[in-house]
Amino acid sequence: MSQEASSINMYQASAPIMVRALSNLKAILSKAEAWAEEKKIDEKVVLNARLALDMLPFVKQIQLATDTAKGAAARLGGVEVPSYADDEATFAELHQRLQKTIDFISSVDAAGFAGAETRDIVLKFPSRTIEFTGLNYLTGFAIPNLFFHVTTAYAILRHCGVPLGKTDFLGG
Amino acid sequence: MSQEASSINMYQASAPIMVRALSNLKAILSKAEAWAEEKKIDEKVVLNARLALDMLPFVKQIQLATDTAKGAAARLGGVEVPSYADDEATFAELHQRLQKTIDFISSVDAAGFAGAETRDIVLKFPSRTIEFTGLNYLTGFAIPNLFFHVTTAYAILRHCGVPLGKTDFLGG
Repeated sequence: MSQEASSINMYQASAPIMVRALSNLKAILSKAEAWAEEKKIDEKVVLNARLALDMLPFVKQIQLATDTAKGAAARLGGVEVPSYADDEATFAELHQRLQKTIDFISSVDAAGFAGAETRDIVLKFPSRTIEFTGLNYLTGFAIPNLFFHVTTAYAILRHCGVPLGKTDFLGG
Repeated sequence: MSQEASSINMYQASAPIMVRALSNLKAILSKAEAWAEEKKIDEKVVLNARLALDMLPFVKQIQLATDTAKGAAARLGGVEVPSYADDEATFAELHQRLQKTIDFISSVDAAGFAGAETRDIVLKFPSRTIEFTGLNYLTGFAIPNLFFHVTTAYAILRHCGVPLGKTDFLGG
């Protein structure tokens, strides 16, 4: 147990991180779009790019980054997790998905995060079910998983030659 | 400003995340080592692997992940940032660096994180100096940058064919 008194809240430790990561990803997506247009590369080629044949493509990295973020904002903020169709096939649709997620997180009332650190969170995956406290869900799953997918999306583009740097990832 | 009362502390929001990420990276490194041995690939080839010719190699990703973590634990915990030589050239030396960093973070007293959310943090880079509050440093720099380098290390190995999956990244 920590000996330090509580000093921040679950809203401060979650929502701004997620909004910032997705906003930076949206700017990265814009750079990929401009690059593909300049190089005359079909957007579907970019959306289907991968780092390995058995890794998920770029489009799926964005879907999973936004899934992780909307799930965390909803579960910690005490509201229903919104359902998305996962049918994005263009840059424009990926932009819409990112903006929709940013808007959703921004819409969740900070007051709903009160007590979220001890709330029971249950995640059901095809192969297993994981139970967390809210704090462990945030620090042991939501934040690492969000950055895993945002970084992998960035890495796919960098590997393909899109001109990006660390500042694009971290934001201004 | 959030309307939620403070409910967690800066120690809970930082040290366990960093220890977990580096411990998982250490386990990933062990898998890379076993794979390279099986494939008879020189460890220097793995340490110098990159996702793009103008991206940093695997060894540097681990150095920067540990730099970010030791810097955050020290600055938020109110102790001196330890200095490392950045001269690792083998898997064994990277394991030592990871373990040394995990041990350092674990050694910082949680009580030292009290008030860290409003502490002035100044980072000097070759091209610019950035000033943060402790909370903004943690959420806007340290956590994203740590996961950027841990994920990129993972992605380099996956791209090269090391058998890894999301569970290796997230941990048990």
